[in-house]
Amino acid sequence: MRRGWNGITISRDTIHIEGMELGYKKPVLFERHAVGGEYGAGFKAGIGKGKVVTVHLGADGDATIVDQRDLSDDNNAVVTYHNPIDNVTDLAHHFFARCLVADGGEGVVPYVVVSRTRKGVVPYVVTKKTVFKWQEGFWVAMKEVFDAHYKDNPGPSAGELPHLISDAATMQIIRWTGGGFGMAAHNYDGDMLTDEVAQVHRSPGFINSVLIGKKASGDANGEIIKEYEASHGTVADMDAARLRGEETSLNPLGMALFGAMDHSADLAGGREDVKDFTASLRKIVHKCMVEGKGTRDLCGPSGLTTEQFIDEVASQIGKDVSAATAAPTKPVAAEKDRGEGALRTSTMRLSMRSSTSSTRTATA
Amino acid sequence: MRRGWNGITISRDTIHIEGMELGYKKPVLFERHAVGGEYGAGFKAGIGKGKVVTVHLGADGDATIVDQRDLSDDNNAVVTYHNPIDNVTDLAHHFFARCLVADGGEGVVPYVVVSRTRKGVVPYVVTKKTVFKWQEGFWVAMKEVFDAHYKDNPGPSAGELPHLISDAATMQIIRWTGGGFGMAAHNYDGDMLTDEVAQVHRSPGFINSVLIGKKASGDANGEIIKEYEASHGTVADMDAARLRGEETSLNPLGMALFGAMDHSADLAGGREDVKDFTASLRKIVHKCMVEGKGTRDLCGPSGLTTEQFIDEVASQIGKDVSAATAAPTKPVAAEKDRGEGALRTSTMRLSMRSSTSSTRTATA
Repeated sequence: MRRGWNGITISRDTIHIEGMELGYKKPVLFERHAVGGEYGAGFKAGIGKGKVVTVHLGADGDATIVDQRDLSDDNNAVVTYHNPIDNVTDLAHHFFARCLVADGGEGVVPYVVVSRTRKGVVPYVVTKKTVFKWQEGFWVAMKEVFDAHYKDNPGPSAGELPHLISDAATMQIIRWTGGGFGMAAHNYDGDMLTDEVAQVHRSPGFINSVLIGKKASGDANGEIIKEYEASHGTVADMDAARLRGEETSLNPLGMALFGAMDHSADLAGGREDVKDFTASLRKIVHKCMVEGKGTRDLCGPSGLTTEQFIDEVASQIGKDVSAATAAPTKPVAAEKDRGEGALRTSTMRLSMRSSTSSTRTATA
Repeated sequence: MRRGWNGITISRDTIHIEGMELGYKKPVLFERHAVGGEYGAGFKAGIGKGKVVTVHLGADGDATIVDQRDLSDDNNAVVTYHNPIDNVTDLAHHFFARCLVADGGEGVVPYVVVSRTRKGVVPYVVTKKTVFKWQEGFWVAMKEVFDAHYKDNPGPSAGELPHLISDAATMQIIRWTGGGFGMAAHNYDGDMLTDEVAQVHRSPGFINSVLIGKKASGDANGEIIKEYEASHGTVADMDAARLRGEETSLNPLGMALFGAMDHSADLAGGREDVKDFTASLRKIVHKCMVEGKGTRDLCGPSGLTTEQFIDEVASQIGKDVSAATAAPTKPVAAEKDRGEGALRTSTMRLSMRSSTSSTRTATA
């Protein structure tokens, strides 16, 4: 499906709630290339000794050997995939522009990556290109956009786009709890690393997930599509429980409801009244969370059920919530251990398109 | 090189020092399949629109199409690799046997995975097989060995080998700080996840790295080879600094010197005097660390240089160190941020073969 609507990137950012201590102090932004890699691989498993040849037949009719190898084992799995690079340019603009305005940034180029004198977060490109040489193309596409549009004035190493090796990124995600950084990575690295970010930030409930694509035809050709996903894997399970009459605890943060409504308002020509409403609603939800009146998955047994939470939020609409303050609180760990069964249900998670609702099957 | 001596697995385990608080309370064991995957991939980058076909030519002369795909982008990277499965059986025995005796385990089958009534650590197989279907073969090979040799008596879910999805593993590695578990994974997952384990356990200096292979010919056919690596990436840099006359701080834990000496003693027919010596030496090194007389990379500026540390350890040899106790201390963060440059040097790290010394180039 991501391919069907020209998926570019899956943006996953940390959610921050005033008055609540989570894992990262400042925002962490992530772009995961939405296409290519092993998710689109072809393979044969259980094949024996022999030779494997991969050939590219170009549009010009020329044939090039991509790889040839001998298999000496009796049992082998052989895998071929490709990384399409063309839309990495779109990913790069989306990423660097987001990093510039994150954390109160002024959205002003040039970046000053090293000195961090401007607001915004520091963008890193994360690959394993030192060993997986074919990943160089992703880095080059990112760097070309950065150097042409976002680079600092010349100076000693100021404004250079930093690169981080994927395995080093697994370590820095744990160390850099101050936040204030962004990472852009290939599809599978993005899958692994964003789940790690979610855990450091306490729960998948505190990280959003927005699929960014582009309309490829029709009146709105080139228009950006944003699909807001539930980033936790239990929504479908919870709805089944609700239908059975059981108590549920569904928090609205991971579903990024407000972001979806805001993007709809943008597409409808900028409905400021909608944005005022979502801003107020977000404030109310945060206030409830901080005061221990969040849903039980985040606030523990003394929190509210889904229905109680909706009633509580509804009762606050229209009231002045600007004075909502409390001592910083820590949420409870929201996620149960994710075994195989739990993950399988997560592929059925609900999501909302920015303009229409649809049920989708995620590829990860 | 790993291929040259029939590499099976890279075992990376947490190092624990009595009296020093590190990340995991109990041991964490890891097996990373030493061959196959993207490390041995063939590829072509920067290729354009066209068709890609991968064909397997079996030893029987039959041709099978592994994959065919159309490329629609102007810039693509195409990648083919294979996972040889034959030696996963050896990996499985090595892993399950190690898990049984870890953490004071008695090395007794059957495992009781769920109830954990016996000592040892719980073995997990980690793959992305729910999406990357070709990884099923690795799981099947692991499970066959487990069920045939290590499985518990029949009972309600007792003794079942647990499986964990790779991205869920990135989260559990952060959550399960009690330790007491093992993980076995494919090559690239193992690269990413062991670095994450190292960071949670405070430093790459507190995790070892042992390449396990098997002699394939000659008198000692089938004999296990163990290559003890320096698990931090700075040994070569540090030796260059030493030769320039600069101060260095080289801790001997990550290099697993003692393990290498013990394995040599085994190969030489079991020299118990050598093992007594290494046991005593390990105790002395741990005592120094706990008392703040470790090397400066782990104990901070008030610690010792490499030469001072060697002198300190030498002065303790032969003394009774059994009474070495101190209040639990925390080490300083040992590793600087690993940028591209730092990692590049790590490919030149020194290592020791169990019987001979050699300089090698790691593939990761």
